[in-house]
Amino acid sequence: MKAVLVLNAGSSSLKFALFAAEPQLADTPALSGQVEGIGATPELTARDASGERFQEPVTTAGGQTEQHRDSLTHLFRWLTAHNPDLEIVAAGHRVVHGGERYSAPVRLTEAVLQELDHFVPLAPLHQPHNLRAVRAVAALLPEIPQVGCFDTAFHRTQPPLAQAFALPRALSAEGVKRYGFHGLSYDYVARSLPGVIGERAHGAVVIAHLGNGSSMCALRDGKSVATTMGFTAVEGLVMGTRSGSLDPGVLLYLMDQKGMDAKALTRLVYKESGLLGVSGISQDMRTLLASAAPEAREAVDLYCYRIARELGSLAAAAGGLDALVFTGGIGEHAAPVREKVAELSAWLGVKIDPAANAAHTTRIDSADSKVAVAVMPTNEEGMIARYTVELLGG
Amino acid sequence: MKAVLVLNAGSSSLKFALFAAEPQLADTPALSGQVEGIGATPELTARDASGERFQEPVTTAGGQTEQHRDSLTHLFRWLTAHNPDLEIVAAGHRVVHGGERYSAPVRLTEAVLQELDHFVPLAPLHQPHNLRAVRAVAALLPEIPQVGCFDTAFHRTQPPLAQAFALPRALSAEGVKRYGFHGLSYDYVARSLPGVIGERAHGAVVIAHLGNGSSMCALRDGKSVATTMGFTAVEGLVMGTRSGSLDPGVLLYLMDQKGMDAKALTRLVYKESGLLGVSGISQDMRTLLASAAPEAREAVDLYCYRIARELGSLAAAAGGLDALVFTGGIGEHAAPVREKVAELSAWLGVKIDPAANAAHTTRIDSADSKVAVAVMPTNEEGMIARYTVELLGG
Repeated sequence: MKAVLVLNAGSSSLKFALFAAEPQLADTPALSGQVEGIGATPELTARDASGERFQEPVTTAGGQTEQHRDSLTHLFRWLTAHNPDLEIVAAGHRVVHGGERYSAPVRLTEAVLQELDHFVPLAPLHQPHNLRAVRAVAALLPEIPQVGCFDTAFHRTQPPLAQAFALPRALSAEGVKRYGFHGLSYDYVARSLPGVIGERAHGAVVIAHLGNGSSMCALRDGKSVATTMGFTAVEGLVMGTRSGSLDPGVLLYLMDQKGMDAKALTRLVYKESGLLGVSGISQDMRTLLASAAPEAREAVDLYCYRIARELGSLAAAAGGLDALVFTGGIGEHAAPVREKVAELSAWLGVKIDPAANAAHTTRIDSADSKVAVAVMPTNEEGMIARYTVELLGG
Repeated sequence: MKAVLVLNAGSSSLKFALFAAEPQLADTPALSGQVEGIGATPELTARDASGERFQEPVTTAGGQTEQHRDSLTHLFRWLTAHNPDLEIVAAGHRVVHGGERYSAPVRLTEAVLQELDHFVPLAPLHQPHNLRAVRAVAALLPEIPQVGCFDTAFHRTQPPLAQAFALPRALSAEGVKRYGFHGLSYDYVARSLPGVIGERAHGAVVIAHLGNGSSMCALRDGKSVATTMGFTAVEGLVMGTRSGSLDPGVLLYLMDQKGMDAKALTRLVYKESGLLGVSGISQDMRTLLASAAPEAREAVDLYCYRIARELGSLAAAAGGLDALVFTGGIGEHAAPVREKVAELSAWLGVKIDPAANAAHTTRIDSADSKVAVAVMPTNEEGMIARYTVELLGG
């Protein structure tokens, strides 16, 4: 089987998906899974298209760097053992940051990798791991082409004003600007949208990618015109453990009055805030929706309120609102969140059908809603596979 | 003449206004002015209702603390010399921070002052100076009642969700929340609004207070439901030298990558950003509007774009938009800013009459605008005088 391998490498995990390299790429992979616990006791888990599950420890010795390398080697060996006739024809990587330059997927040569190294300070938690995996694959399978697919690229169509902070020009010039993320998800949903809402997909659309990381994107004619995440993935909406937007004065106050340093502040806004911080109970929307505690309710209410506020702001960027799309784990499955957001957005002409919403059907707007409202799955891995095939002319 | 003295004490200045204590308080003071340069070479300037101007150095010796005290003494002496029959019956103070507790003006007793001392860490640049002036007046004129009027109080009608950050509960409980500012201005405009737009003043209204400090407030039935400034006066819109909203990750990046500390970051976001930072030319909107430089245009465009985005977000908070009001130095005088904001907000039904806008008339909406658009002067000093008289039952 000829296949495209999709990789998403993190600090302690390596997610993968294998797509059969056919003229019309399937939406679901033939095989997918991950190595987790890299740096501790890595273990490979996987599932094939028939639903069969696999699990085995990764044989490795040494430190974190060796464990990353060994995990990849183990994965290739396991893939080949599982598919004796497997031929990986290309690898597509999720690379979080493409800076200002990359507005589309790119063939990963060593020259390109060296340029992408420059963006490490912009995404220190993800970029180094993404790039290390590319180099590791190049060492193991030097003959296959590799493609980098950026979380930021989809947003490069935005007008400069939407990407700007009101900071001194020198800082903006060196790259302190709003890049936006979740671009693979937005592109996937945007490409599928005409099939769901027809002509309106080319109008003013807002996609809410609601998951453990949450953001929203305003589109005009299928292209990003604004998004809630900015320079980093902590800005914008309330998330599982991330604060979302915060008065800069709050950080200054915490530095001044509590002596917090960058490390402590990073932990605060990335790990201890959001749904977890507000509820004091959980970062998981399912747990909060099932809870009777007023603190859980408060966290959910704030999550929805902030979505509704950002929806107004994004409608301003798009010049109106023809359609609202929910995607991501929460977007696809949390009917009460969609209901609350719709209620707060009635002023925009959003009206949902309660039964359709409860059933998670694809279209959930009521017949008299001015705005089309859809619930759609996203597929970042499928998007990477598609980009890879498209770029390589396959 | 019986009069109410209005004081606004800062770190190096003391602004004052004297309003005749009449049953129907005048909108304009009988006399107003300021002592500037406190800590260096303080000088008193003033202007009376007839337009006559006065200017004289303040006799003082010693350090900054003594200069503050001497400036106030000098002011009282000068006021009495200027109005031999002057009888100050009350003093009303601008106090920037009333915390969560004060949702209205308050009679300033020593017990209240001690409570207001607790809010110094929330507004270290203003609160100590505001409170010092109250105590200085109490020492000089112990018999007159004093009233504190808070920039934050008007916003205490907001729903809790509008005041919340998605931070850990403990931080929110200790007061890290969105207080909002410019409340004296919003209250003044809100009270005058029914006379300008009638019944619509009780609907969904957004007031844009655009000056060197800029913010916007959403109102429902004349009460604040949301505002763009938060914990501090740096959040929200682009301002003269303030950044407005910023991804928290930007500050973390500047700490990590450039070793900036709280002092450097404070200088950056309060003094070097905003219109000045983006243009590299000036913090003054008049200068930028008169400039042909593309950088000036960029700063003005970003200023307007951010207003339009926040207008969408505030309309979400208010559940729609019946009226938009411009006030403050820029709001009242910069027709091109109003024009651009209206253009970007056409999707909300905002449409202005170009001739009315150019002439700065009170109503500038075109006949077919769905949204009433007004240009109104604000009067924070007059509001403080009115509050003071109201509270004291005068």
